[in-house]
Amino acid sequence: MSLQRQLKYAVLGIGRMGSRHAQNIAFRTPRAELVAVCDINQSSLEWAKENLPPGVKTFQNADKCLDEAGKHVLLEKPISIDLETSRQVVEETKKYPGLKVMVGFSRRFDESYREVKKMINAGTLGTPHLIKSATNDQHDSSGFFVKYAAASGGIFIDCGIHDIDLARWFLLPSSPDIKQVKRVFALGHNIQHPELAKYNDVDNGVGVVEFENGGILVIHCSRTMKHGHDCFTEVFGTEGKVIVNGNPQLNRVEIRDQYGVRTESTPTYYERFREAFVNEVNEFTDIVLDNKPLPVFCVDALEAAKIAAALAHSFKTNNPVYFDEKGEPLLL
Amino acid sequence: MSLQRQLKYAVLGIGRMGSRHAQNIAFRTPRAELVAVCDINQSSLEWAKENLPPGVKTFQNADKCLDEAGKHVLLEKPISIDLETSRQVVEETKKYPGLKVMVGFSRRFDESYREVKKMINAGTLGTPHLIKSATNDQHDSSGFFVKYAAASGGIFIDCGIHDIDLARWFLLPSSPDIKQVKRVFALGHNIQHPELAKYNDVDNGVGVVEFENGGILVIHCSRTMKHGHDCFTEVFGTEGKVIVNGNPQLNRVEIRDQYGVRTESTPTYYERFREAFVNEVNEFTDIVLDNKPLPVFCVDALEAAKIAAALAHSFKTNNPVYFDEKGEPLLL
Amino acid sequence: MSLQRQLKYAVLGIGRMGSRHAQNIAFRTPRAELVAVCDINQSSLEWAKENLPPGVKTFQNADKCLDEAGKHVLLEKPISIDLETSRQVVEETKKYPGLKVMVGFSRRFDESYREVKKMINAGTLGTPHLIKSATNDQHDSSGFFVKYAAASGGIFIDCGIHDIDLARWFLLPSSPDIKQVKRVFALGHNIQHPELAKYNDVDNGVGVVEFENGGILVIHCSRTMKHGHDCFTEVFGTEGKVIVNGNPQLNRVEIRDQYGVRTESTPTYYERFREAFVNEVNEFTDIVLDNKPLPVFCVDALEAAKIAAALAHSFKTNNPVYFDEKGEPLLL
Amino acid sequence: MSLQRQLKYAVLGIGRMGSRHAQNIAFRTPRAELVAVCDINQSSLEWAKENLPPGVKTFQNADKCLDEAGKHVLLEKPISIDLETSRQVVEETKKYPGLKVMVGFSRRFDESYREVKKMINAGTLGTPHLIKSATNDQHDSSGFFVKYAAASGGIFIDCGIHDIDLARWFLLPSSPDIKQVKRVFALGHNIQHPELAKYNDVDNGVGVVEFENGGILVIHCSRTMKHGHDCFTEVFGTEGKVIVNGNPQLNRVEIRDQYGVRTESTPTYYERFREAFVNEVNEFTDIVLDNKPLPVFCVDALEAAKIAAALAHSFKTNNPVYFDEKGEPLLL
Repeated sequence: MSLQRQLKYAVLGIGRMGSRHAQNIAFRTPRAELVAVCDINQSSLEWAKENLPPGVKTFQNADKCLDEAGKHVLLEKPISIDLETSRQVVEETKKYPGLKVMVGFSRRFDESYREVKKMINAGTLGTPHLIKSATNDQHDSSGFFVKYAAASGGIFIDCGIHDIDLARWFLLPSSPDIKQVKRVFALGHNIQHPELAKYNDVDNGVGVVEFENGGILVIHCSRTMKHGHDCFTEVFGTEGKVIVNGNPQLNRVEIRDQYGVRTESTPTYYERFREAFVNEVNEFTDIVLDNKPLPVFCVDALEAAKIAAALAHSFKTNNPVYFDEKGEPLLL
Repeated sequence: MSLQRQLKYAVLGIGRMGSRHAQNIAFRTPRAELVAVCDINQSSLEWAKENLPPGVKTFQNADKCLDEAGKHVLLEKPISIDLETSRQVVEETKKYPGLKVMVGFSRRFDESYREVKKMINAGTLGTPHLIKSATNDQHDSSGFFVKYAAASGGIFIDCGIHDIDLARWFLLPSSPDIKQVKRVFALGHNIQHPELAKYNDVDNGVGVVEFENGGILVIHCSRTMKHGHDCFTEVFGTEGKVIVNGNPQLNRVEIRDQYGVRTESTPTYYERFREAFVNEVNEFTDIVLDNKPLPVFCVDALEAAKIAAALAHSFKTNNPVYFDEKGEPLLL
Repeated sequence: MSLQRQLKYAVLGIGRMGSRHAQNIAFRTPRAELVAVCDINQSSLEWAKENLPPGVKTFQNADKCLDEAGKHVLLEKPISIDLETSRQVVEETKKYPGLKVMVGFSRRFDESYREVKKMINAGTLGTPHLIKSATNDQHDSSGFFVKYAAASGGIFIDCGIHDIDLARWFLLPSSPDIKQVKRVFALGHNIQHPELAKYNDVDNGVGVVEFENGGILVIHCSRTMKHGHDCFTEVFGTEGKVIVNGNPQLNRVEIRDQYGVRTESTPTYYERFREAFVNEVNEFTDIVLDNKPLPVFCVDALEAAKIAAALAHSFKTNNPVYFDEKGEPLLL
Repeated sequence: MSLQRQLKYAVLGIGRMGSRHAQNIAFRTPRAELVAVCDINQSSLEWAKENLPPGVKTFQNADKCLDEAGKHVLLEKPISIDLETSRQVVEETKKYPGLKVMVGFSRRFDESYREVKKMINAGTLGTPHLIKSATNDQHDSSGFFVKYAAASGGIFIDCGIHDIDLARWFLLPSSPDIKQVKRVFALGHNIQHPELAKYNDVDNGVGVVEFENGGILVIHCSRTMKHGHDCFTEVFGTEGKVIVNGNPQLNRVEIRDQYGVRTESTPTYYERFREAFVNEVNEFTDIVLDNKPLPVFCVDALEAAKIAAALAHSFKTNNPVYFDEKGEPLLL
């Protein structure tokens, strides 16, 4: 690793999560240099002036910020909540084989999920065959979440995409055949947010995915936890099972008082994956500067999005959704 | 409670589980007295001579053992692996309103599940709406299990019936309307026991049940655990969730050595539910002697069996199975 | 094991703990038969009439109850809070080598502590060399405890005797040389119960014991826990350490709500050791009926009491207390 | 917080821990800039050339590196293994009231211990009165540790200093009176490393400290763990107790296989306190740049060192060590 060269980053969109990425790139990732940020909101740019290093340029116009074509790209998941847009992005990237385009599936950069991947590669778990995964958000009584839901793509895309990506990562070979999924089935209900029904969305959704190789994924997405953000993955193999984040502890403190023996939970995904976001940038930087292979591709985001869309369709239609021989969901 | 009267028990079938029931009735349940056991195997009767109190009579013929009609009955679950037989038993019991007939769903007599039921009744969890439950047996490499599988009714009936009963107990009102279930869906695979395919059975089965009131059950039945018998139930309510048996600890010992920080697991369901089997007899005895109401009825076993049969049918046909307005599964 | 013979028990003293022993003997221990109970309180005898089997005789006078000499004895710990009385009892038992006299150190009959003993015997932990043990009672705001304290012998005898016995069991060979202890040191304070000072007692006491073979015991006795009764033992060996009861869970229920991820604790020692008290009677019954060797002797209670007395003395005098060559504490 | 100014750092000594500090300052601490490193070993300086940013100067001579007086200082603990040297450093710092001199007691910058401090300040735990703390290192079979032990100052200083500092932080008021400690007592043994005896050192040491305000600390330092680095602190208050790092988990992965239900442990203190070392630099940087008050002083390191020295002396002499009215241990 040489420190002589640093990779220059521009961050497009510095809202809730983008501002954290910008700070990580500015301060916590040695080979990455933040040179510009862009946001249509003036208030975000003012935040940038105060919280980012003095030399960082600010733009309100993304085209001006990028100014020329031919940049490597680190994309947030999902590429788009619309399957066709995602598909076009994937097609577009194929035209630029010299550029690195990576999707930031944060869990793939989390040390615990990585440890599981290592165990699978090493054979410690035998053949992994079943995954039960949950992304359960803390209940938001402020009303913000419901407004956000309209544009989120629905619970299976917004929450479930990570669980789906994990299942593909753990259960499928690295170059899967064109048809990866046999079928999916989903159901759900609104226990706290009946107003989601108008978006065909739910606050608790359950889905099952049967992969073509026989592997099974069970997911549960929820917006109604009282104790915090609780995302939990079980991977069953023939030689053992592993659980990631069985207890979503905020820290290493256990309290014993009139409420029992207890721990505090991470309130949001951010406390849970804080370090993963840093790892993600560090790794992408190395990939570009040292011309290393990508660990996750745009097409992975597209394939995960297909499954999420199929689950949403199954929920809407009350029927299983099958995939055709080309690997496309039959959204009839 | 008076100790002046004891309830006399005859145990029919003293194989693996029956012998334990006989010992519990003989030695661990103050108001219950074991007076007879019956088994077609001579070796079981010899075991009885050596291990049960001297006065206990032994029979090889069940009719002789019972000798007259009109007994209260504590039944093992499931009533039968055949739905029609179960239905006939339920019909038969209706003819004898003066007799107590209870199905021994052991988990309903376990102190931890009871604590959950109490919390639900007290409103501590708010509205319970979703249950994720797993009955995962330790992998049996002896070959015994596969032989047993042929007569077990399949994984959804043999393992899943308990999870289904819990879901009905926790999610449904005590006198549900005739139609309780909307639909079920199931899938599964054989990862260790391909020979189960010939019985239309699997070693890992996943099912979802959507109740008419909107409640959802997700179950996972497995025969392939390496660490022990692991049965795990999560109950999600609007005010909190509870987990029963998150770690299937055998005892209160934690070891810290070259394998990490670890606990030993219960090898079978018996170590897990040892005390529940005693509670079950104590409670049934009180019900009969003190003429108390039954906490669980024959019809509960029938309703659970319908759901299990629907799951098995869904697995076989690859389609969701719906229930009709009379509450019967449409096994088309 | 033959069921033809049962061992007849008389229970002397059926107050708080004695009544539980009586019920265990009456109802939960197959080879033991309860024939009589004795208590100076009439109300206890009335309780017995209602809660014990009809044939059990009741006595207010212990001599009449025993009516003749030559009984086997299962003693509660400590034999006496007075060292000299304990010593006389031990001397007296030596005159009756044909009688079984066992001290009911309940932890020795608990399945978890037994598992640790097995591991030590099997060499799994290597050489055990250090024990850290805590007996921490739930804070009693009713005032009962302080009244009781006057006659309890002090915290090191009342709470600590079990931890001391465990340390002797785990660290010393089964037939230790006459001098087992090198020295002890103790300190403590009253954080909730200043009124204990008048009995030279504390509500939190800490002690260290250095055994002649180099083994070390650290104990912490407390009366001031908010969450429940928490007794916790760590055994350090050269190949690993074990912890017994790291989390004093009441049952297998974990709650996740606004207070975090939490479990309820055992309120008293009784919920923690319920089964151990049954095991204790079963085992003593077998020992007498089948003439088996005793697993724990009167002299073990005496040796533990010496250590407890030395700790109490160290606390009072502010100095370490040494043991002489005959194994007697130098209570100067 | 302004980013216009950065604090320039020179790191003196870039061996095992110093190299990590240098990397943290170079890459993970936004307002801190690494300008120079110094080490007498040429190989360390070569490491610096390859792993630190291009502009960082390297020195073999500390005087040249510092080149002038009047620098703020962030010191590693302990200031010195020799009490008198520590005392002189503390005296020297008094001459420069305008300079910030902080001791990097890493646990004070760990988010979990900080949470405990917050709880104490908020009164959540009531009055904290007793601390049981353990710093237990993984057994090192390479022989490195024993060589290192000669210069480490002994187990109570090398391991125990952190536990002692925590106890002072949690139990004492922020400006304690001159006499803080009443007395200490220590014992220990060598179970794996008999060769330590020649340094008057042990591989397992136990100590008790009685503070003048009645608070008690029990510490256990060990070099012989099999499972990893396990440092564990219990803080007992009148309203509850807290445990920090009850399970020294390396990550959020739990494995269930033939060895039971288990987690992997942090191998060394570094994995445990990785983030605390970053926090420490960030905080010291803010203190200097923004002229904030110091949270921990040189004198705290001296006071902790006095207690550690008293424990070592108690171990050597077999007697309690008392402190005089000026707060000095009577090392007779």
